[in-house]
Amino acid sequence: MELRTVSWKNNRAVLIDQTRLPDKLVMIQCTTPAAVWKAIKDLKVRGAPAIGAAAALGLYLGVRGKKFSGYLALRKKIDSTFNYLNSARPTAVNLRWALERMRRTVEVLGDQPVDRIEAALLQEALKIMEDDRRCCREMARQGQVLIANNDRVLTYCNTGILATVDYGTALGVLYRAAEQGKKLKVFACETRPLLQGARLTSWELSRKGLDPTLICDNTAGWLMRRGMIDKVFIGADRIAANGDAANKIGSYSLAVLARSHKISFYVVAPQSTFDQSLKTGDLIPIEQRDPGEVRRMFFKKSVAPAKVKILNFAFDVVPARLITAIVTDQGIIRPPYVRNIRSCLS
Amino acid sequence: MELRTVSWKNNRAVLIDQTRLPDKLVMIQCTTPAAVWKAIKDLKVRGAPAIGAAAALGLYLGVRGKKFSGYLALRKKIDSTFNYLNSARPTAVNLRWALERMRRTVEVLGDQPVDRIEAALLQEALKIMEDDRRCCREMARQGQVLIANNDRVLTYCNTGILATVDYGTALGVLYRAAEQGKKLKVFACETRPLLQGARLTSWELSRKGLDPTLICDNTAGWLMRRGMIDKVFIGADRIAANGDAANKIGSYSLAVLARSHKISFYVVAPQSTFDQSLKTGDLIPIEQRDPGEVRRMFFKKSVAPAKVKILNFAFDVVPARLITAIVTDQGIIRPPYVRNIRSCLS
Repeated sequence: MELRTVSWKNNRAVLIDQTRLPDKLVMIQCTTPAAVWKAIKDLKVRGAPAIGAAAALGLYLGVRGKKFSGYLALRKKIDSTFNYLNSARPTAVNLRWALERMRRTVEVLGDQPVDRIEAALLQEALKIMEDDRRCCREMARQGQVLIANNDRVLTYCNTGILATVDYGTALGVLYRAAEQGKKLKVFACETRPLLQGARLTSWELSRKGLDPTLICDNTAGWLMRRGMIDKVFIGADRIAANGDAANKIGSYSLAVLARSHKISFYVVAPQSTFDQSLKTGDLIPIEQRDPGEVRRMFFKKSVAPAKVKILNFAFDVVPARLITAIVTDQGIIRPPYVRNIRSCLS
Repeated sequence: MELRTVSWKNNRAVLIDQTRLPDKLVMIQCTTPAAVWKAIKDLKVRGAPAIGAAAALGLYLGVRGKKFSGYLALRKKIDSTFNYLNSARPTAVNLRWALERMRRTVEVLGDQPVDRIEAALLQEALKIMEDDRRCCREMARQGQVLIANNDRVLTYCNTGILATVDYGTALGVLYRAAEQGKKLKVFACETRPLLQGARLTSWELSRKGLDPTLICDNTAGWLMRRGMIDKVFIGADRIAANGDAANKIGSYSLAVLARSHKISFYVVAPQSTFDQSLKTGDLIPIEQRDPGEVRRMFFKKSVAPAKVKILNFAFDVVPARLITAIVTDQGIIRPPYVRNIRSCLS
């Protein structure tokens, strides 16, 4: 069955409930902006492009079938629904971008009858979805040249079919490379606290036949050190004018680790993710979420598909050159270590 | 109540069952080497020094109250129990170190009556425990000079009371600094997959009044980038002759991140953690554990105490200088980004 993360069917926004994966593939049907807002807030739909598409449908649901006395009444409703939906999550800019496309549609048709504007809003929401599909294919086509045969690629969070209307951003690049016949080994980080990598990416990659290996986030640096990773591909929620890219917490650490191992680090994102009004990433608002996400494990059953490969190293080794000092019961040992360990402990 | 991670009471090895924390403080009573082996294997007792102490008691339990025809029979039993207990976990060297202290006791008393040797074995196990207590206090005394008033310290896994017979290695240094009146802010990484930081360290630090803040492992680099961390203190499971230190998976990444932010990175470990027979850390065996630890969440209820502070950033920002290229639907953008983003997307 083809996966449709966000679709419009029988006058409803139909979303895959991503909090139920990998155990069950369950669809939710939204008929109100409130239902869409909650789906975004609760991460039933997540991934910057998918959020944008869902929000566009949500904005349309806010006016659909309502009686408006005229343009001003419709416009007032659009503005309040815009602000409401835009409040669901602060970091991804695609949410606002999609809502603004919808609002512009209303503005442009200001002199038209209200039901004509309503119809145009649905068309625009469907076009946002279609544009996202096309855009993902285009990113994949562009990006696949960066992947060589037998590359071992590390990815983070979920940037695939489930993060977009279809196909994905960073994972789309991998899908395309695989379709071109390139052999790939994909390592997926589980992505704490909500485990999008374990629940969604490893499920989605397995379904697509890419046979991923799942690791805990803290294992990525160790695999780089052991020479097991060639390239890193991630998505983005917002990219500033200077290229600083906001993405799932942990992306920053991966980038520092990749750089220090001389591993290429690629970000894959559609134009709608760029926010050229912000000079640098320091200006991007960073969402802080409920501590309960860390404190409790929401996902009571499996957090990864039953058959996905997992690499579970229990330890790693910190090279002496990265250690400032070793505190022992015999005193504090500083570099050079070979000599000083011997003399301190003898 | 004073916590005793490993103790000897009523002819039993009494261990805190660390898999039940933070929900319940439950003791388990071991009367056989098999019970101790299983407690080590299942991480009911963990932490390199605590494992060593438990194994010493386990070796004694293997001969206690048994009838032996003579020294050779006793020695045979000691050797087989030694190998059996030593197989429980491969990375921490303290396990073998403690078992070797016990075997040496037998060797030294080779000409003595069997029951005399048996009594000496119990004395040696108790001495290993007492030495660990003394040793932890000494490391703490030595190490506290590295901590300044108002330091913000990041720690990893559990290196405290629960990892030793008493007081701890890296956490012992923090306890001592706090007892000296220094103000500290402690960030504890949760430490996937088994969440020793969330379940044990945040519980133990809260109990000691240190009011820790819990973070996901992938958040540490981001806090460093934001200037929120002054120093990192971790323990070790084995340290090679050159200072390379094996420790819980993720320690390596933290060390690279600390170095790239010019943050001091300290390892705290007793002499028994050093393995001078290994020239470098590349020779340390790294345990790979059951994938089920990653796939399922073993701890169905809370994974952290109800009141511990948690910092739950959902995103971070990857600075452009760490990004090799940005793949968009408009093409692949490479540095310099300000100019190339503008020209590619306009």
